[in-house]
Amino acid sequence: VALVPQGGNTGLVAGAVPHDGAVVVDLRALDHLEAVDVAAAQVTVGAGTTLEALQEHVAPHGLSFGVDLGARDSATVGGMVATNAGGLHVVRYGSMRSQVLGLEAVLGTGEVVAANLGGLVKDNTGYDLAGLICGSEGTLGIVTRVRLRLVPTPEERLVLLLGLPSVADAVDVLARVRARPTLHSVELMRAPDLALVEAHLDRPFPLQPLPPCVLLVELAGADPSPDLERLVTELGLPDERTAVAEGDPAAAGMWRWREAHPEAAAALGLVHKADVTLPAGGLAPFVGSVEAAVEASAPGATTLVYGHLADGNLHVNVVGPDADDDRPLDAVLELVLGHGGSVSAEHGIGRAKRAWLLRQRGEAAVAAMRDLKSALDPDGVLNPGVLLP
Amino acid sequence: VALVPQGGNTGLVAGAVPHDGAVVVDLRALDHLEAVDVAAAQVTVGAGTTLEALQEHVAPHGLSFGVDLGARDSATVGGMVATNAGGLHVVRYGSMRSQVLGLEAVLGTGEVVAANLGGLVKDNTGYDLAGLICGSEGTLGIVTRVRLRLVPTPEERLVLLLGLPSVADAVDVLARVRARPTLHSVELMRAPDLALVEAHLDRPFPLQPLPPCVLLVELAGADPSPDLERLVTELGLPDERTAVAEGDPAAAGMWRWREAHPEAAAALGLVHKADVTLPAGGLAPFVGSVEAAVEASAPGATTLVYGHLADGNLHVNVVGPDADDDRPLDAVLELVLGHGGSVSAEHGIGRAKRAWLLRQRGEAAVAAMRDLKSALDPDGVLNPGVLLP
Repeated sequence: VALVPQGGNTGLVAGAVPHDGAVVVDLRALDHLEAVDVAAAQVTVGAGTTLEALQEHVAPHGLSFGVDLGARDSATVGGMVATNAGGLHVVRYGSMRSQVLGLEAVLGTGEVVAANLGGLVKDNTGYDLAGLICGSEGTLGIVTRVRLRLVPTPEERLVLLLGLPSVADAVDVLARVRARPTLHSVELMRAPDLALVEAHLDRPFPLQPLPPCVLLVELAGADPSPDLERLVTELGLPDERTAVAEGDPAAAGMWRWREAHPEAAAALGLVHKADVTLPAGGLAPFVGSVEAAVEASAPGATTLVYGHLADGNLHVNVVGPDADDDRPLDAVLELVLGHGGSVSAEHGIGRAKRAWLLRQRGEAAVAAMRDLKSALDPDGVLNPGVLLP
Repeated sequence: VALVPQGGNTGLVAGAVPHDGAVVVDLRALDHLEAVDVAAAQVTVGAGTTLEALQEHVAPHGLSFGVDLGARDSATVGGMVATNAGGLHVVRYGSMRSQVLGLEAVLGTGEVVAANLGGLVKDNTGYDLAGLICGSEGTLGIVTRVRLRLVPTPEERLVLLLGLPSVADAVDVLARVRARPTLHSVELMRAPDLALVEAHLDRPFPLQPLPPCVLLVELAGADPSPDLERLVTELGLPDERTAVAEGDPAAAGMWRWREAHPEAAAALGLVHKADVTLPAGGLAPFVGSVEAAVEASAPGATTLVYGHLADGNLHVNVVGPDADDDRPLDAVLELVLGHGGSVSAEHGIGRAKRAWLLRQRGEAAVAAMRDLKSALDPDGVLNPGVLLP
């Protein structure tokens, strides 16, 4: 009997959708939180713990979890490990794989493997089973418990909105801020999408008239002000092209504009979602041509483009085509491959992107992945039909 | 025919030593350096590139490689990837696996797999083959080319020597400095070992009389001075218990004391080497009892203990026992397991520590590793006899 592990059901590539009589393994009851190891800045939690519960558990100790994302109230740690989730602060802390010190998982053989649940910072004894299971989307093992690294909660955070003439300018700004030690996030937004968000939230964006391109830059640390001043001085932008938020409520208000993008898309109708990476040089050309690529097979479609610019990671949302019309997203992914990018930046492959794995990784790598799957799940009971074509 | 990949031959666990007619695959000729991608802060190099050649290649661009270690003039990037090398700055940048964005490797099947040689920051398309091969000690694939992340070269670095009454005090200091954003290294040294180094280098240590325990703390960044002042003020140590080095030549002079430890040991005779991790709470008890544990089977042996305290990683050098007398190191590793530590922090398992893998990782995990080995190297031609018991 096939087993389909499920956490908070926030995945976007149908990796936790049961098919053909498979049994759903609901992991949300594994939500125990062990005591925070403050000296080591680590914690062990059950796979069913939501990101928000984890955040609330560690916050009183002056610690934070390095990965944050919009679906924090329902996404579970197990699912985030299984999909190697990324989110808003990858530029500072890396994605889930960088936070996982150890884990416990049940393989397809029924064997329970544990790796470094004691949270040793260095443990070079054999293959990195934890890292391999992280990002395997429930196809190699079912994650039950995780040892996570924590980070000091930044004393102060500043959020800056920068209005810029183009995506190419945004990429230039990114190159300037990348090395700043307080850099916490760099998110891209565009005028046509912000106009949709304005309509959805029913209030005007802080920068008016809407600039063609907006960067949301978060700086965080003991004192991020010098980095902020240096950046603003270097850029020499007029006042009406910048807005600064100090303190958590104001910062959250700025972030709302970014986080409301998927909601604004959903308000228009069924959303086809792509989550892609471009190399730095491909970002501006991609954004410049993606709407035309969609339009070719879906005249009149609405295309939103936004995301984690610091990681080269863009989310493309297309509204208009029928649910079973794959042509517009296929055109988007073709464009991504043409620019040397990746068809999945952080959402994974799931069922939805399976046909693209060979194109992305090549025959030899996919054959090796199949061999690894057979090794840890010889009967193919774990999430069959997910990830591997 | 068995194949044994070799790089700079700086391994310490006999992972690159040929046996039984195996063919050595010398990778040092694969030493090509591609142009540094300055905007992305990345570079692609051949597996045979030495660490020093890599460092010299990227330095003119204001960039550094995040891993540094004493054998930099001969250790090769391929070997460092294969062993997931750690070194002096893991507390700041992580070990090799954290630096590897992508790689090319030849599997046991003869297939060449490439993963993310374009250096995309995020690529969530299938299993992390690069991360799995990293640390597999040449048993899953032979690394031929690597895409590496680089870090901005810190504008300034300060090295501080702190004389402390005990290892327990050193662990307390570590807890204070851990969250400082400029923290670059925290190394532990002890008076009896420093006395050997003084004899070896024929000059007196900067702090006199020799304190029982010395921490070498490196702070680095745009301006590490505030972190230094805060630390010195908080600790309230008398002047004769601290020494500060500003600038590269002075800093290198301080580091010489730490890096000369293995040389001082070698000057005494054949060195038995253990490389272990302890959890924070186990560090002081371990150091307090390790000499007695060695003494039980090797009366009169000299035991040096030093290492990367920030990672809980200690190097134990024992001089005195015969080359084939495993009892003293076995006693050290037993003590490590008793304190919840790891028998290999950064050197790997190789041939020398193979018998300990089961004890460290358990039957289920080692069985899974064997299955992974069979999957990528079905004929068992890659480094047989290494890592897996």
